Amino acid sequence: MKKVNVVVVGATGAVGQELLKILNERNFPINNLKLCATSRSAGTSVEFQGCRYVVEETTPESFTDMDIALFAGGKASLEFGQAAVERGCVVIDNSSNYRMDPEVPLVVPEVNPEDVKWHKGIIANPNCSTIIMVVALKPIYDVAGIKRVVVSTYQAVSGAGKEGIEELTAQTKAVLEGLEHSPKKFLHPIAFNLIPHIDVFQDMDYTKEEWKMVKETQKILHDDKVRITATTVRVPVYRSHSESVNVETERKITAAQAKEILAKAPGVIVQDDIGNNVYPMPLFTSDKDEVFVGRIREDNTIDNGLNLWVVGDQIRKGAATNAVQIAELLLKYNCLMR
Amino acid sequence: MKKVNVVVVGATGAVGQELLKILNERNFPINNLKLCATSRSAGTSVEFQGCRYVVEETTPESFTDMDIALFAGGKASLEFGQAAVERGCVVIDNSSNYRMDPEVPLVVPEVNPEDVKWHKGIIANPNCSTIIMVVALKPIYDVAGIKRVVVSTYQAVSGAGKEGIEELTAQTKAVLEGLEHSPKKFLHPIAFNLIPHIDVFQDMDYTKEEWKMVKETQKILHDDKVRITATTVRVPVYRSHSESVNVETERKITAAQAKEILAKAPGVIVQDDIGNNVYPMPLFTSDKDEVFVGRIREDNTIDNGLNLWVVGDQIRKGAATNAVQIAELLLKYNCLMR
Repeated sequence: MKKVNVVVVGATGAVGQELLKILNERNFPINNLKLCATSRSAGTSVEFQGCRYVVEETTPESFTDMDIALFAGGKASLEFGQAAVERGCVVIDNSSNYRMDPEVPLVVPEVNPEDVKWHKGIIANPNCSTIIMVVALKPIYDVAGIKRVVVSTYQAVSGAGKEGIEELTAQTKAVLEGLEHSPKKFLHPIAFNLIPHIDVFQDMDYTKEEWKMVKETQKILHDDKVRITATTVRVPVYRSHSESVNVETERKITAAQAKEILAKAPGVIVQDDIGNNVYPMPLFTSDKDEVFVGRIREDNTIDNGLNLWVVGDQIRKGAATNAVQIAELLLKYNCLMR
Repeated sequence: MKKVNVVVVGATGAVGQELLKILNERNFPINNLKLCATSRSAGTSVEFQGCRYVVEETTPESFTDMDIALFAGGKASLEFGQAAVERGCVVIDNSSNYRMDPEVPLVVPEVNPEDVKWHKGIIANPNCSTIIMVVALKPIYDVAGIKRVVVSTYQAVSGAGKEGIEELTAQTKAVLEGLEHSPKKFLHPIAFNLIPHIDVFQDMDYTKEEWKMVKETQKILHDDKVRITATTVRVPVYRSHSESVNVETERKITAAQAKEILAKAPGVIVQDDIGNNVYPMPLFTSDKDEVFVGRIREDNTIDNGLNLWVVGDQIRKGAATNAVQIAELLLKYNCLMR
């Protein structure tokens, strides 16, 4: 198999570290690897497959002779994305910077792999909550069509990066010891609390996170007629996002049919054995690449209704795994730029 | 004001203790107070308004000469409810034993106070999640009618009593110290986890807790045409249940109208000032009697849609406060049995 040159931008953060772990696990065919980050992290070193790599500060020249750039997130792709493309390097961008750009494919490999083919240099990795939901919805969409989705999320602190994780730990300890601990990363205390506010407020008083779940899902499914309304909530869980998803399909499917369809679907594991108290829980889905679906029930308040409980590791399938899968599609479809 | 004889059954548990606190706070006109519990707790003593009361084991004779019996929960009302009624004592029962009995009113004082009047000795206090939701829904129901509700809950561990609270603390400490801690009260670990399973599984794979939210809401509103579908989830929060509530009304109301209506509604506090990051959070609604509503948004995926985020202390408004309010109605409407 052809080996390619890969640069990871933002290599020292939570998603960057996970990208390296997954490139290794999936044995991605790397020729040269380069690790980049902001000047703050440049100079540190990171191990990968037995070798130590010194992290470089990202510059336009970081992309010279590289085939694929995996951007972990943040503003880096705004600053360096075009420079990478100009040098013949395909950008897979985990930030939200280009997701809604009509010139940029937004790809979940289990859902719309073919969209990789029309890229013009940049491919966007969707929002974590969106990826997790759409992997579970697509098999149902294909069989029964989807009219409307009402989703409420239960999102882990690692969605806010390493600082989110550290804040949950420090704050929880402080509460248990009866000490004060002011929020830094989150706007309010997260230990033993819920915060119904993720990302900034936008149109109609929905948050950006809520609109992402609406608009990105429609773009990935190529179907603006799928109506979605979302409420996104931060919960004191370290890792894996959970979602309570109510689906109105175009055509009736029973809970039994939905289970069967989901059990056969790529990237999905059905955990739905209530007799044995089996259903997905975020503590047990972390470090896994699949999306877990359980509590599959018919919703008899409408003609064609289903309720699902969907859980997935938002750093893996919700970010890093999905990005590496897109890189694999670039090789499979032979659509690199160099 | 007439003073009455009150017996609290299950006085030593979380709800029982809260009942005493609220009887005191609201200055309920008590003549004689009697505290009862199972034989396990009998003999212990509890302070109330400066006096110490020895807890007695509940027997049929516990209700002789008593006017109102507040049952905190569990099976006690099955065992002793009829005995109380036969002795002329009105039972206000926080358990689910009689809630769906057509001979028993199910009352939320802000919603259906008049139902107290037709009691035949027993009045049921609804499920905590139901009370919190229906207090927020009723003002909307009155103005715009309600067709359908899709609700996902985020329920605190204190819904499972003192043992639930202790388990969250002990387990969280253990996790932070890297120690093992097997679940006892809950079926699975609750520290830094979510459990999408509250109470036993019933019809159509919904839990009893989910069906309670459906059937009790319909009974309280006297309207079986209101369609409700629920997903109930335990979260690592000590106190106050939160609910993401999607409402389809019969007639259009805007978010602004909904805010105005809710702001004027009894027992409701609107916390919805997103410019200042104000919305209800369970850490800050505990020990309060009101139901807090925020994130009030129009849902434009349907003609008449609203999304609400509703939070309330499930031991107070969700249990003890509601029960004491029912007792107050018994005096107001003069419908005791002795």
